[in-house]
Amino acid sequence: MKTSLIILAAGMGTRMNSEMPKVLHAIAGDPMLVHAMAAGATLEPEHTIVVAGHGADQVTAAAHAYDETATVVLQTEQLGTAHAVDQAKEALAGFDGTAIVLYGDTPFVSPETLEQMMEASAAADVVVLGFEAADPGRYGRLVMNGDALEKIVEFKDANEAERAITLCNSGVIACNAALLFDLIAAVDNKNASEEYYLTDIIGLANARGLKATAVTCDEAETLGVNSRAQLAQAEAAFQARARAILMEDGVTMQAPETVYLARDTYIGRDTVIEPNVVFGPGVTVESGVLIRAFSHLEGCHVSRGATVGPYARLRPGAELEENTRVGNFCEVKNATIAEGAKVNHLSYIGDAFVGARANIGAGTITCNYDGVMKHHTHIGADAFIGSNTMLVAPVHIGNGAMTGSGSVITSDVEADALALARAPQVEKPGMARKLMEMLKAKKAKLQRGS
Amino acid sequence: MKTSLIILAAGMGTRMNSEMPKVLHAIAGDPMLVHAMAAGATLEPEHTIVVAGHGADQVTAAAHAYDETATVVLQTEQLGTAHAVDQAKEALAGFDGTAIVLYGDTPFVSPETLEQMMEASAAADVVVLGFEAADPGRYGRLVMNGDALEKIVEFKDANEAERAITLCNSGVIACNAALLFDLIAAVDNKNASEEYYLTDIIGLANARGLKATAVTCDEAETLGVNSRAQLAQAEAAFQARARAILMEDGVTMQAPETVYLARDTYIGRDTVIEPNVVFGPGVTVESGVLIRAFSHLEGCHVSRGATVGPYARLRPGAELEENTRVGNFCEVKNATIAEGAKVNHLSYIGDAFVGARANIGAGTITCNYDGVMKHHTHIGADAFIGSNTMLVAPVHIGNGAMTGSGSVITSDVEADALALARAPQVEKPGMARKLMEMLKAKKAKLQRGS
Amino acid sequence: MKTSLIILAAGMGTRMNSEMPKVLHAIAGDPMLVHAMAAGATLEPEHTIVVAGHGADQVTAAAHAYDETATVVLQTEQLGTAHAVDQAKEALAGFDGTAIVLYGDTPFVSPETLEQMMEASAAADVVVLGFEAADPGRYGRLVMNGDALEKIVEFKDANEAERAITLCNSGVIACNAALLFDLIAAVDNKNASEEYYLTDIIGLANARGLKATAVTCDEAETLGVNSRAQLAQAEAAFQARARAILMEDGVTMQAPETVYLARDTYIGRDTVIEPNVVFGPGVTVESGVLIRAFSHLEGCHVSRGATVGPYARLRPGAELEENTRVGNFCEVKNATIAEGAKVNHLSYIGDAFVGARANIGAGTITCNYDGVMKHHTHIGADAFIGSNTMLVAPVHIGNGAMTGSGSVITSDVEADALALARAPQVEKPGMARKLMEMLKAKKAKLQRGS
Repeated sequence: MKTSLIILAAGMGTRMNSEMPKVLHAIAGDPMLVHAMAAGATLEPEHTIVVAGHGADQVTAAAHAYDETATVVLQTEQLGTAHAVDQAKEALAGFDGTAIVLYGDTPFVSPETLEQMMEASAAADVVVLGFEAADPGRYGRLVMNGDALEKIVEFKDANEAERAITLCNSGVIACNAALLFDLIAAVDNKNASEEYYLTDIIGLANARGLKATAVTCDEAETLGVNSRAQLAQAEAAFQARARAILMEDGVTMQAPETVYLARDTYIGRDTVIEPNVVFGPGVTVESGVLIRAFSHLEGCHVSRGATVGPYARLRPGAELEENTRVGNFCEVKNATIAEGAKVNHLSYIGDAFVGARANIGAGTITCNYDGVMKHHTHIGADAFIGSNTMLVAPVHIGNGAMTGSGSVITSDVEADALALARAPQVEKPGMARKLMEMLKAKKAKLQRGS
Repeated sequence: MKTSLIILAAGMGTRMNSEMPKVLHAIAGDPMLVHAMAAGATLEPEHTIVVAGHGADQVTAAAHAYDETATVVLQTEQLGTAHAVDQAKEALAGFDGTAIVLYGDTPFVSPETLEQMMEASAAADVVVLGFEAADPGRYGRLVMNGDALEKIVEFKDANEAERAITLCNSGVIACNAALLFDLIAAVDNKNASEEYYLTDIIGLANARGLKATAVTCDEAETLGVNSRAQLAQAEAAFQARARAILMEDGVTMQAPETVYLARDTYIGRDTVIEPNVVFGPGVTVESGVLIRAFSHLEGCHVSRGATVGPYARLRPGAELEENTRVGNFCEVKNATIAEGAKVNHLSYIGDAFVGARANIGAGTITCNYDGVMKHHTHIGADAFIGSNTMLVAPVHIGNGAMTGSGSVITSDVEADALALARAPQVEKPGMARKLMEMLKAKKAKLQRGS
Repeated sequence: MKTSLIILAAGMGTRMNSEMPKVLHAIAGDPMLVHAMAAGATLEPEHTIVVAGHGADQVTAAAHAYDETATVVLQTEQLGTAHAVDQAKEALAGFDGTAIVLYGDTPFVSPETLEQMMEASAAADVVVLGFEAADPGRYGRLVMNGDALEKIVEFKDANEAERAITLCNSGVIACNAALLFDLIAAVDNKNASEEYYLTDIIGLANARGLKATAVTCDEAETLGVNSRAQLAQAEAAFQARARAILMEDGVTMQAPETVYLARDTYIGRDTVIEPNVVFGPGVTVESGVLIRAFSHLEGCHVSRGATVGPYARLRPGAELEENTRVGNFCEVKNATIAEGAKVNHLSYIGDAFVGARANIGAGTITCNYDGVMKHHTHIGADAFIGSNTMLVAPVHIGNGAMTGSGSVITSDVEADALALARAPQVEKPGMARKLMEMLKAKKAKLQRGS
């Protein structure tokens, strides 16, 4: 069945107390909007329409960063959800299929739930997503008659019997696109808020003898975010779910409550993660890897048998091949560490290739930036880079070559050669003692003077 | 109205199991005593009297570190709370106003509550701070008659009706100073513990026909600390409150439960804090800053648009101007990083000025200590410090100057100049291979020998 | 009384979803098997028999790593617990004492409980360890008659009265070894699972007129682990207990929930631990130490008055004497830091001795590895190692000697001498500006070209 998404993302989110539009606040490293788009994307929609309003430029940028083909339409005035959906009308002119209305501040509706809504929409004209609320509070209630949805009643308008209903309205709706806009055209704003409510289309559909129904999902899927405290709660809920799934999948976490995952983090079976590890977006970790405490990974790939950390930072473009080692206080960016190579201590490897089995001494730095441009460093297989070697890129170190510790390497080194750039050691007997005595005398004099 | 504080800080805190006096154990980076003093300080007291006993020297030092004008009096024997308060008598001789008795191990009484007590003391002779206890347990009960406080009854002396009372005694009292000492003079120690109880002044006041009353605060404010486990709980309560306030104020924390704040941490709106960040005392972070994971800040100021971390340590005196960047494994101490300057990797910048837009290469160290004294490093605007440059202070790098990577800079560098201190690179063909073979042979020989 | 342990460790643990045998999954840095072995070891057993099956090689290695004298026997087929215990028969032939059956996936049975079982076994033939279950669910129930254990009934076989029993079976059993194997010989596998159940020996013992009884322990001790989520819960339970004990013992933790301890971590009184500290196995920290945030310690000893971190990594063999300091982004491995010495910033000290009061400058590296072997560095008392000194081991720096910053030290330095290896600083006026202009022009050209 053909699908299109309409994602409402125009709200300001006053309670967020932020310059940034609400839907751009992030959970697990991605804007909430992207979570909603990603869930919808599993339906392979023909069109994805994002309805932007407050901070439309930023919302547009974020939408396109995730999906270049998304269409952003503008809701210049905030006149209610029906009005917001109506902004997608033109963009969906000619689209003959089901439109699903999602919300950019409701990030957790699952692909499975959307699939169920699509199935239900085969047999009904309008499908509303409901959830059994533990504490229905002031949510709108779904009044069902068998599998027919009779109406959605707002809490304030509900009678006692209706308030006893625990099936509540999530706001998510699936409906044939043409019908949706047709029904919306009949929605009015004769209510206290003077807003055009999307929920009104249920009554209108029933009045026309059309069939409305509901699909039910877990309450957790419909969690909406209105404040930063709720954002933090949503983050915590995401993390708890994601950690539980990883553990099911065979990942060991000594302290799962201290491991922060991104929306797209992939970690293989029998990988062990110590406490306090943060994953940014775009990380793939294979099976049998050890990620030690206090590591930070973003946009990288770690192969089987590798050990990362403690205190290792892998930045975007870090590619760790099998049985590699990136140790404490090391930063790797846009660099391949080939099989069996080791970067154990206090090093910066950026814009580089480190050959198989190469050993990178403590304090090694690839000097990749000349103040204007970035340059590449190549280190051959089996090379031995002495501690505190400066590799001034662009530079090429041959296979099996060696650099003396403390060397600044500005020219290429051929295979199997030893390169040194080092001043000879000179010793001045007794000078340390004299210097210290002099410095102490100077300090004493300064103190007397003051 | 004139106010003076009497803060009881003489107890040992046996259950703390510590050499350190109880009131010096810290919450959010400051001794509990300081929390009590800071709350009282909002009343702008004429005198602040700290009653010390166990570890009086340490308590005195801590009290004066927060408030040089505080008077510390000694309670040499621990004979009860009335006796403790009485030690302040001489120090308050001639003070004509309200004395408020606070406790150094009860850190959370709020300024608002103290203000309410001051207001109540305008219409009553003695004002006691009570709280509605969820579980009153063995707390003393406040027996009220309308707004008159009839007596404070200890749990063990209470009858059934009195035990049903849930309004409990916090111990905090406000009373005209002269009257307070006058009432205390009448307190005896004819009780099981043979202690002089401050609470007895209520009965004495009522017996004299004076008016006692109570002010009620939230139970959380009266939390007392008697063990390290309770200290940790108090810390957790502080942190939860402080994080919630920051989120209300527009700060984003991905995982608020992993961000540790100090008593005086200030963070601006739309600043984003990643997981695992620790704030020590004296930190101000402006709006729109990004504090990345695993950062540690103390006594520093971070301006708008700056990015800190991951793994950045800002120590006291670090001043980050707008749009600066201090990155991974960098330590900044007593140094200004001027607008737009970058210290991205593995550097130590101490006792220094880094000019606007300067770029500090990876591994740069300001060698500020000669074994006896600390010296200053000046780096001019737009300077480019090559990786692994040692800046041997005192040293001055001119605007727009550049240093070659791996250079030890001991003399000043003039503006726009390039300074180098580097041995030429020499290459010994085949030598790496020979060295490795030799070393392997040596190792094999050693292993055969063993 | 003579004791031997039979520890069942043959299961695969399908729900762990792991290549690694279940009992080798770690809690607090040690395999669960080791926790069980360590609890049993307090009884000073004559024999410790580990019954291995799945992953027997790995299980054997782990058992021997903890206790070289342990006997590992093989259960090649998994035919039930009685069958598993029976594999120990030969190894215990001739042993005349009490055998205690423990489980490698039940890590928390306490030494005190085992002691109680030993005492009970003096007056009974078979002793079963039971626990009062808060939610007995599907556990087997212990049917008692006074202090006599009549039978263990599986939940599915229990009648209503039996299901109401809350005293449940932990599986842990103490019994004279010869009797144990004699009873096991009579156990059959006529049940739905066709397994030989160890619990059947209770019925058999009673049928013979022998006395069975039960000892009761806290439910938390019998916690078994069947999935990684349960492993994480067991870890959390361990950590909560261990932290609470440390706090009782006078250790301050600002945020105990962020401090991860190993099974054998020892920390002295009035030591303060900041948030986010990870202890691996083998750490002893004396009293009055400050462990700052983000530190990671394994196999090391830290003496009174030392300060560690933030961001310090102490690896196995690190020995910090009194009043030493290891600061941020420093790694110490197999090295002694003698009294009062300081390693404050960005250093790697491995295979070394750092003398008393020595000061190690920022960025110092002991170049201990030549590509084949590790070598030792000796730094004398009161030495001053300039920033970014490379100490190419083996090398000996005399007492009171000094090295110039940026020096590569390859030869020994005598006491009180100053060693330098440094190229002279040269300055090229205006060259920085020219270089930058050139680079910018080049970049512009490249951009035009692309």
